[in-house]
Amino acid sequence: MKKIGVLTSGGDCSGMNAAIRSTVRTALTKGLEVVGIRQGFVGLLDKLYFSMDSKSVSNILQHAGTILQTARCEEFKFERGQKQAVRTIEELGIDGLVIIGGNGSLTGALALHHQGIKVIGIPATIDNDLFGTDMAIGVDTALNTIVTAIDIIRDTASSHDRAFIIEVMGRESGYLALMAAIASGAEAAIIPEVPCDLEKIAQHLLERYKAGKTNSLIIVAEGASSAYTIERKLKGSIGYETRITVLGHIQRGGVTTVFDRLLASNFGMLAVKALLDGKSGEMTVLQGNNYSTISLEEVISKKKKITPELLELAKSLSS
Amino acid sequence: MKKIGVLTSGGDCSGMNAAIRSTVRTALTKGLEVVGIRQGFVGLLDKLYFSMDSKSVSNILQHAGTILQTARCEEFKFERGQKQAVRTIEELGIDGLVIIGGNGSLTGALALHHQGIKVIGIPATIDNDLFGTDMAIGVDTALNTIVTAIDIIRDTASSHDRAFIIEVMGRESGYLALMAAIASGAEAAIIPEVPCDLEKIAQHLLERYKAGKTNSLIIVAEGASSAYTIERKLKGSIGYETRITVLGHIQRGGVTTVFDRLLASNFGMLAVKALLDGKSGEMTVLQGNNYSTISLEEVISKKKKITPELLELAKSLSS
Amino acid sequence: MKKIGVLTSGGDCSGMNAAIRSTVRTALTKGLEVVGIRQGFVGLLDKLYFSMDSKSVSNILQHAGTILQTARCEEFKFERGQKQAVRTIEELGIDGLVIIGGNGSLTGALALHHQGIKVIGIPATIDNDLFGTDMAIGVDTALNTIVTAIDIIRDTASSHDRAFIIEVMGRESGYLALMAAIASGAEAAIIPEVPCDLEKIAQHLLERYKAGKTNSLIIVAEGASSAYTIERKLKGSIGYETRITVLGHIQRGGVTTVFDRLLASNFGMLAVKALLDGKSGEMTVLQGNNYSTISLEEVISKKKKITPELLELAKSLSS
Amino acid sequence: MKKIGVLTSGGDCSGMNAAIRSTVRTALTKGLEVVGIRQGFVGLLDKLYFSMDSKSVSNILQHAGTILQTARCEEFKFERGQKQAVRTIEELGIDGLVIIGGNGSLTGALALHHQGIKVIGIPATIDNDLFGTDMAIGVDTALNTIVTAIDIIRDTASSHDRAFIIEVMGRESGYLALMAAIASGAEAAIIPEVPCDLEKIAQHLLERYKAGKTNSLIIVAEGASSAYTIERKLKGSIGYETRITVLGHIQRGGVTTVFDRLLASNFGMLAVKALLDGKSGEMTVLQGNNYSTISLEEVISKKKKITPELLELAKSLSS
Repeated sequence: MKKIGVLTSGGDCSGMNAAIRSTVRTALTKGLEVVGIRQGFVGLLDKLYFSMDSKSVSNILQHAGTILQTARCEEFKFERGQKQAVRTIEELGIDGLVIIGGNGSLTGALALHHQGIKVIGIPATIDNDLFGTDMAIGVDTALNTIVTAIDIIRDTASSHDRAFIIEVMGRESGYLALMAAIASGAEAAIIPEVPCDLEKIAQHLLERYKAGKTNSLIIVAEGASSAYTIERKLKGSIGYETRITVLGHIQRGGVTTVFDRLLASNFGMLAVKALLDGKSGEMTVLQGNNYSTISLEEVISKKKKITPELLELAKSLSS
Repeated sequence: MKKIGVLTSGGDCSGMNAAIRSTVRTALTKGLEVVGIRQGFVGLLDKLYFSMDSKSVSNILQHAGTILQTARCEEFKFERGQKQAVRTIEELGIDGLVIIGGNGSLTGALALHHQGIKVIGIPATIDNDLFGTDMAIGVDTALNTIVTAIDIIRDTASSHDRAFIIEVMGRESGYLALMAAIASGAEAAIIPEVPCDLEKIAQHLLERYKAGKTNSLIIVAEGASSAYTIERKLKGSIGYETRITVLGHIQRGGVTTVFDRLLASNFGMLAVKALLDGKSGEMTVLQGNNYSTISLEEVISKKKKITPELLELAKSLSS
Repeated sequence: MKKIGVLTSGGDCSGMNAAIRSTVRTALTKGLEVVGIRQGFVGLLDKLYFSMDSKSVSNILQHAGTILQTARCEEFKFERGQKQAVRTIEELGIDGLVIIGGNGSLTGALALHHQGIKVIGIPATIDNDLFGTDMAIGVDTALNTIVTAIDIIRDTASSHDRAFIIEVMGRESGYLALMAAIASGAEAAIIPEVPCDLEKIAQHLLERYKAGKTNSLIIVAEGASSAYTIERKLKGSIGYETRITVLGHIQRGGVTTVFDRLLASNFGMLAVKALLDGKSGEMTVLQGNNYSTISLEEVISKKKKITPELLELAKSLSS
Repeated sequence: MKKIGVLTSGGDCSGMNAAIRSTVRTALTKGLEVVGIRQGFVGLLDKLYFSMDSKSVSNILQHAGTILQTARCEEFKFERGQKQAVRTIEELGIDGLVIIGGNGSLTGALALHHQGIKVIGIPATIDNDLFGTDMAIGVDTALNTIVTAIDIIRDTASSHDRAFIIEVMGRESGYLALMAAIASGAEAAIIPEVPCDLEKIAQHLLERYKAGKTNSLIIVAEGASSAYTIERKLKGSIGYETRITVLGHIQRGGVTTVFDRLLASNFGMLAVKALLDGKSGEMTVLQGNNYSTISLEEVISKKKKITPELLELAKSLSS
């Protein structure tokens, strides 16, 4: 192996840059050449690339987003697109590819692996919905950004008699919403993994209200419902005013936390080593304290679940 | 004068606590007793109050929101409500009142003044729409919170080819939106004070796009339009994807900035001094470097304008 | 078990409040009474305590420091002091005690256990030097505060041709320094666990300098040396100016991160459950993904080590 | 005028980049060419320069430090050095120069003006010690960074019985220390402008201590004394423990605040306009709400004072 490529794909998140940096620096240390592919799979189709050295990744460790940019790529979902990507990869003399992204991106990575390209995936998505790894890059930063925003809203909520309904990202996963609810001391979390009993929530809030706790926070996962729907249903039954905040795209950013910098640095190093070890079709994972790689096949085909311990903690604290 | 009351009213903002603290500490230093009224004018009607000492305001200087809480009060808009407030004030033996809030709250303050109560207002509103003072409490913190959020969005925007349309508060004023646009290096600001030529904006963005600047930020003042409306109108005509963020209630908060702590501290001190000097029906103001008070009558009846210099600066930087 | 006590001891850290909150809320949910002991072991000797309810721990989840305060207590190191503490505990009818703190505090906890008191310890120290748990409360927040400060210094360093030598806390452990170095992309870390070859560091910096990388960061663990000593030794041999920053007490604080809120919440819940299960003389731990308790005897007698993987990562990135 | 140069000199501060950006963008809009000089006056002697376009200043608005770098330059203090600078300026065909920096840098600017070069200065120094302008670039960000650090220390101080002595920058000016003290609610500020009565401070702290306020913050301006000296003198006389923090270089940084972005943007625009108007030997200033320029001669020869109002406010709040 003499030359590797690296790309980021799908929704961006904080820590992608740290992963790029670690991938590049580790590869250079091992004597490899590195090619940066721009705009994810689009760059493989349109031949958007550049040679990367140590300076290419200077001073990016802490910054959200991705210097390689990212884009959606419809063509790559079809075999014709994938074959074209393979041609580019061969033309550039790339012996192995590091693909940083979420579920869709890793499905693409697997497709390239099936086309005979050596590929290692790095999980990067704020949704933390990837099977096999405790944490994906970007989750810790997203959570801290979300909780900082909720802390701010708590201040304004406590100045009025108000229930705030706050919608957070997470696609089909309630992980972000649940963690944010626990960490911000919210009164309720509405997530897709658990049937939502709005009447019970309303009653709980009403009881708190009567007990003098006149402000409440309800966190809604976008995969379960929308803040607007929940507000419409709660209105009237909880006895005081409601307000809505949809956190939106600020959740993707924020200065990369120490945890994400470490995780991304480890994943980058690990991905390069896996390629050098002749591996392909695998994804870097963190399980407990152990870093390793598992088959992308498994990652894509299985569904990550929220642990019962987490659900229990959520219940015990909202009293 | 032996005893004063203090209340916060209307929408909360960061710095209200600093103003309460300064009012209380200054009054105590001058040998006055201080009564804190809870929930704004509601507290005057429902007799929600408590005696405040130096410890009541310990460790609140930096925190957003208001320890006195705030609420809307329909009854107080009518003379009957105002008369009832006067009775409470007399019952409590309050000789003067400091009212911290925005336009509606200061209209209420003026009504009490007309009822014979000694009142000094302190301008506190993130909208910065109060005539007579360069800055109201809360504006600087709100702006920094907004711009921090926009910085985060800029990071994610620059990872994709996207125009972000960001809606900020400000009621009928475009001040917040314009300042945020300048300070975040946004490409366009849509504000109620200036007729909006969306075609020109679309063309400007399109030209930038062709020149390789594939991400843009457009700031929309809630008083001018909504992010959704602007997106619908721009879509298609700018050549790349758009995304929306409505910043919502996080704008009211954030750790109080140094400027707001200073402004609030000065206003609190000034308000107590004005009461001791026998003044009433006035509001504390900052004009250039000078702190003074002006008539509430004038504040309420006149409309604050955005300076032409600010508009020019906005134009010159978005090129 | 009907009544438990909770105290914080030793150096404070961010997350102690979250642990107090979880301990109190869990205990109340289980039908227990809770007594808060002020100022650590001093409060046990001087009978500084108060009854805690759900409201006692409202709105403290995110705040650094400890509402129970903490203090050093010389008398408690001797059996006479410990016996006096036992008398207070019996007088108050406390059936079990949760002690939140670092090495010294847990040594005290073990002493009480030997005196027949039911005690569960919760590890809380920014130094992360406690055997048996991957992370202590406060470490993640401290690291993020440290790295945020280093990011700021990096900005100023890159505006000049300067090497910055930054001293961080950690007592006899190099964990904080090493993690901060990796996460901030520092050029070198000087820690007690690894013999320091200053000549090699100087040469590395000199080579970087000649290659045009004219700013460098060197992180020094207080347990290894002092920033002043390192500066004196490096001066002259690296070819450009040096500056010193001793981060000091800001490292103990910062808004509690999501990780620390979660860790503290889990530890608090776990400690109460352990007491209810009849356990004593144990400490809550996180090992991989598993929460459990281990013997305080073991915690106190063994020394935590830095993993070889971490040391390797440090090396591979500073190139 | 066809071509201008821009440089930053002296200690760096947050907002310099915003000033560079505004200078460059305004000049380009006016049809001028722009040359960036690296490393301050060193760059004029050693011919370190590059041509700047709109992209050169993309995405720098919010970042502390200076992309043009800065350095100390002994040679430039002598006429021979200045003459050499003039030769470079003529060689490059630069018709006017914008110099961004503090007292020393502006003294250099004045020297160049005397050598016949068209020069406009922009005040940028965290010390806020420049006569003629209410605020220099960098002051607001430095203050917010300082006060954020003090807020953190307050949390840890309130967990112990401790007086914290915190040393802040400011060279011969007590402005930063005094403002930080007011904004952080510190108990005392020791500044060069006011004779320091340590006995009185000790007595004040002792009285507070006896009244149950067992933590205190004392802010020391580096121009008045050092935290170590003050600690040595206070120790023993205040009845409880003391701790020291020297904030150091983090004060120069932090994400540029909205105020500094605005101030820097205005100053940059104003400087270019002044050059186009044929002015030279002047510095951009903010006085109240008015932006204008005044003679560098006056700036250099006069001493800025702290206003009596500020001193009074400091007194009234620390009670």
